[in-house]
Amino acid sequence: MELAGSVVRQLQKIVGNTYVTIEKEELVCYSFDATGRSFLPQAVVFPQNSDQVSKIFCLATDKGFNVVPRGSGSGMTGGAVPVEGGVVVCTSRLNKIIEIDSKNLIARVEPGVILQDIHKAVEKRGLFYPPDPASSAVCTIGGNVGECAGGPRAVKYGVTRDYVIGLKAVLPSGEIIQTGVATAKGVAGYDLTRLIIGSEGTLAFVTQITLKLLPKPEKVKTLAVLFDSIGKAADTVSAVMRKAVLPRCVEFMDEASLNLVKNYFPFALPDNIKALIIIELDGEADIIERDAKIINDFCIGVGALDVIVARDENEALGLWAGRKALSPVLFKIACNKINEDIVVPIDKIPDMVKITQKIQKESGLKVVSFGHAGDGNIHCNIMYNQADKEESKQAQKAVDELFDATLNLGGTITGEHGVGITKMKYLPKEIGSKQIEIMKGIKKVFDPLNILNPGKIF
Amino acid sequence: MELAGSVVRQLQKIVGNTYVTIEKEELVCYSFDATGRSFLPQAVVFPQNSDQVSKIFCLATDKGFNVVPRGSGSGMTGGAVPVEGGVVVCTSRLNKIIEIDSKNLIARVEPGVILQDIHKAVEKRGLFYPPDPASSAVCTIGGNVGECAGGPRAVKYGVTRDYVIGLKAVLPSGEIIQTGVATAKGVAGYDLTRLIIGSEGTLAFVTQITLKLLPKPEKVKTLAVLFDSIGKAADTVSAVMRKAVLPRCVEFMDEASLNLVKNYFPFALPDNIKALIIIELDGEADIIERDAKIINDFCIGVGALDVIVARDENEALGLWAGRKALSPVLFKIACNKINEDIVVPIDKIPDMVKITQKIQKESGLKVVSFGHAGDGNIHCNIMYNQADKEESKQAQKAVDELFDATLNLGGTITGEHGVGITKMKYLPKEIGSKQIEIMKGIKKVFDPLNILNPGKIF
Repeated sequence: MELAGSVVRQLQKIVGNTYVTIEKEELVCYSFDATGRSFLPQAVVFPQNSDQVSKIFCLATDKGFNVVPRGSGSGMTGGAVPVEGGVVVCTSRLNKIIEIDSKNLIARVEPGVILQDIHKAVEKRGLFYPPDPASSAVCTIGGNVGECAGGPRAVKYGVTRDYVIGLKAVLPSGEIIQTGVATAKGVAGYDLTRLIIGSEGTLAFVTQITLKLLPKPEKVKTLAVLFDSIGKAADTVSAVMRKAVLPRCVEFMDEASLNLVKNYFPFALPDNIKALIIIELDGEADIIERDAKIINDFCIGVGALDVIVARDENEALGLWAGRKALSPVLFKIACNKINEDIVVPIDKIPDMVKITQKIQKESGLKVVSFGHAGDGNIHCNIMYNQADKEESKQAQKAVDELFDATLNLGGTITGEHGVGITKMKYLPKEIGSKQIEIMKGIKKVFDPLNILNPGKIF
Repeated sequence: MELAGSVVRQLQKIVGNTYVTIEKEELVCYSFDATGRSFLPQAVVFPQNSDQVSKIFCLATDKGFNVVPRGSGSGMTGGAVPVEGGVVVCTSRLNKIIEIDSKNLIARVEPGVILQDIHKAVEKRGLFYPPDPASSAVCTIGGNVGECAGGPRAVKYGVTRDYVIGLKAVLPSGEIIQTGVATAKGVAGYDLTRLIIGSEGTLAFVTQITLKLLPKPEKVKTLAVLFDSIGKAADTVSAVMRKAVLPRCVEFMDEASLNLVKNYFPFALPDNIKALIIIELDGEADIIERDAKIINDFCIGVGALDVIVARDENEALGLWAGRKALSPVLFKIACNKINEDIVVPIDKIPDMVKITQKIQKESGLKVVSFGHAGDGNIHCNIMYNQADKEESKQAQKAVDELFDATLNLGGTITGEHGVGITKMKYLPKEIGSKQIEIMKGIKKVFDPLNILNPGKIF
C-alpha cells in the first residue's frame, strides 16, 4: 500500500525533501537484511535528531502507519525488515560520536555510528569498547543495542548490555525519555535501559547511547590451534575455559568452514586438519606471554597438530582473516542458509558437535559450524537451496532438531542475533507462554497502538 | 487489620503450622529494616519452595491481602517493610546452595542464602562471586537481587545485575516462570531477568537465582592511604581511577567517619588525618605488586601523609575493619540518620565533597561521608534527632539540597540502595513522569491487583 501524498509531504517537512525516499528501486535496498527475507517499505526516511524522530512518531500515530528502525541492515533475524509494511526510519544520519569522556570512562554516541568507528575513536584515546560482532565494519551501535550484540570478545568482556549504561529514546507516542545514568552505578526505578537493549527495536527508538568504556588492554596475543579431530578441538575449548587463564576470544571453525576460507589464512593448512581454534589473550605483556605458553603447552599436550602464534598485530589480523570472511563465503556451498546462533553450556560443546554431525548426516545437507566457542555460542549454518522443496523441508527439520537438542542441553536458541521473524515460532519452546504474555503486556505499555516494528519476536 | 482465622489456617496448611507467625511480639521483628521505619505485618510466613510461594500468592489473590518479600531486612530504603500491611513472606527457609558448577562457572542458589556463605562456598572451589555489599555477613542474595546490590568491588567487577543470568520467580498470579539462561549469553525475548533485578521485590518473588562466577583472583593486595585534606583525597581518587591500573576497591572515609572508627584500625591514625582511602588490587601476584608500587608512589607524590600496605590477609582485614564497622557506629553521633547513596561522575567527586561540607555548615547537622569513591558512589549520612522538629526540618532540607546537587552534577540519587519508600518523592526529579508512567504500566502487567509489595518506588 502506498503512503498518501500528503503523508509523504509531511515526512518531507519533518526531515527535509532529500531525506524521504519513495522510489521503488530505492525502497528495495531497505527491504531486507542479512536473512535475505525481503518486505518492501512504504517509504524510507532519514532523520537527523530526536525531535525529527518524535515528529515521525506523532505523524505515524495520527495517520496509522508503522515505523521500522533500521541501522545497516546487517541483522541476522529480520529485526529491521518491515514485515507488516510501514516507514523504515534509518539511523544513517544519526551518526555522531557526541563525546568521549576519558576522565569518567564513558562515551555518548548516536545510534547510526558504525561500530568500528567507535572502536577506533576510543582506542585512539587509550580506551576500549569490547563488544565486536563480526560485522563491526558495517553494523551500527544502534543495531547492536537493538539485538544486544556480542562477538568473539564476549568470552572475557560480556555483551552490549554490559556496556550500555544509559539511553535517550523516543517512545511510539513521540515522547522522549532518558533512561539509566551517566555514572558507574544507578538503580533508580526499573531497569528500562536493559529492557530496551535486546528488545529488537520494538519498544522505543534509541537516539543516543551512553557507553561505559575500559582502559585499553596493554597487549594482545593471538594463537591459532590446529586439530585433526573436531572432537579433540571441542574438548580443548571446554578444557581451556576451565583454566584460570581467561582468553578474550576462543573462536572455533569446523572442517567445512576451513575448506571455505583456507585461502584467507596466511599459512597453509595441513591436509589432515579437521578444526581450528583461534585463542586471543589480552592484558599485561608479561602475563599474556606466560598464559600463551600455558595454552600452547596444553594444546600440544592434548594432541593439537600445531599452534601458530602471531608475532605482531599484522600476523594476528592474518589469523583472523579466515574467521571474518566466513559468513559471506558460506553462499559458495548453497544459495540459502539458515544461520542459528545457539548457545550451550561450555561443557556441552562436544555433545553439540556430535549432534550437528548427526543432523548433517541425516538431512543430507551441509551443516557448517563456527563461532564463539569460548562462551558456548556456536553459529550453526544449515546450507540449502530454497527453490528445492525437499531441501527446504530437510532444512526446516534440521533446525527443529538443532533447537530441541540445544534446549535439552540446557542452552538457548539465540545468544546474540535475537528472535526477529526467523525464530518467532521457536521462542515459546524456550521461554513458555506465560513469559510471552508478559512480554506482550510490556510491548503494549510502550506501544499501545503497535506501530513500532510490529510482527517481531512474538 | 488482623487476618481472618481461616486465612491463617490456610497459610498454615501451605507452609506448616510452625512456619506462620501472628504473635505481635514476633511480628514487630519483621516490621522494619535498616531505615528504622516500621510497619506491622499481619503475619509472617516462611515457605520452603516455589510451590508454597505460588500457593501463598493464589491465596493472596483470593483473599485480597498483600505479599511483602523479605530477606534479612538489611535494606536501606524500606524495600522489605509492609508499608500497606499484608503478609511478610520471609526467604529464610529458601536457603539452599543448589549447585556450584565449576565446569560452566555458574551457581544456582535460593534467595535466602546469606551472601557471605555464597562467597565462602564458591571460593572453596577456586571461584569468585564479586558483589560484596558491606552487609555481606547478614544480607541475602535475594535481597541483593531485589535492590541490585553493589559494594566496594563494583569498581572493577560491576554489580549484582552483571552476575545474575537467570531467575526462577513466582508471579503475583501464582504462576512460576524461569527467565534468562544458564549459559554465558542469551537474548531470547525481552530481558525479564534484568527487569526483575532491582525491581525491589515489586514484580515477582524470586525463588531461584543462577549466578555467573569468575575464576578466583590469584592474589589480593590492600593499601590504606592517609591524607591531611579531604580535597587532596578526593582529587587522588579521581586521579587513580584515570590510571590504567584498575583497583577492585577504592573506598573513602572522611574525618567524621574516621573519628567514629579510629579504634577499629590496627594502627594509630595521625592527629592531622582528614581522610583515608582504602585501595584494593587483585589479580596476578607480580602485576599487583607492580600496581601497588605505582599507586603508592603516586599517592606519596600528591602529598598523602602515609600509605600502609597490608602484608597478609589478616592485616588486610584489619584495614577493612574500620570501614565495615562504620554504618552501625554512626548512631553514636545522633539517634537518626538519613543515609543516601548518591553517585556522581568520578571527576565530580571533589565538587561533591565541597557540597557536603557546605550542607553540613549550613544545616548545623553532622554529615558523614564514606563509601565506594572509585565508582563515584558516596554514602552520605545526615545525622539528626527525629524528635527535634528543627533538626528534622534541617535534615530534610539537607537531603533536598544533596539530591539537587547530585542531579546537577550528572549523577543519580541511588547507586545501589534502591528507591523503596525513602526516595519515592525524589524519583520524579531524576527520571521524569513519563518513565514513571511506563514503570507503573510494567508493574500492572506483572501485578494487576497490586498485591506484591505495594507502596514502593513510585
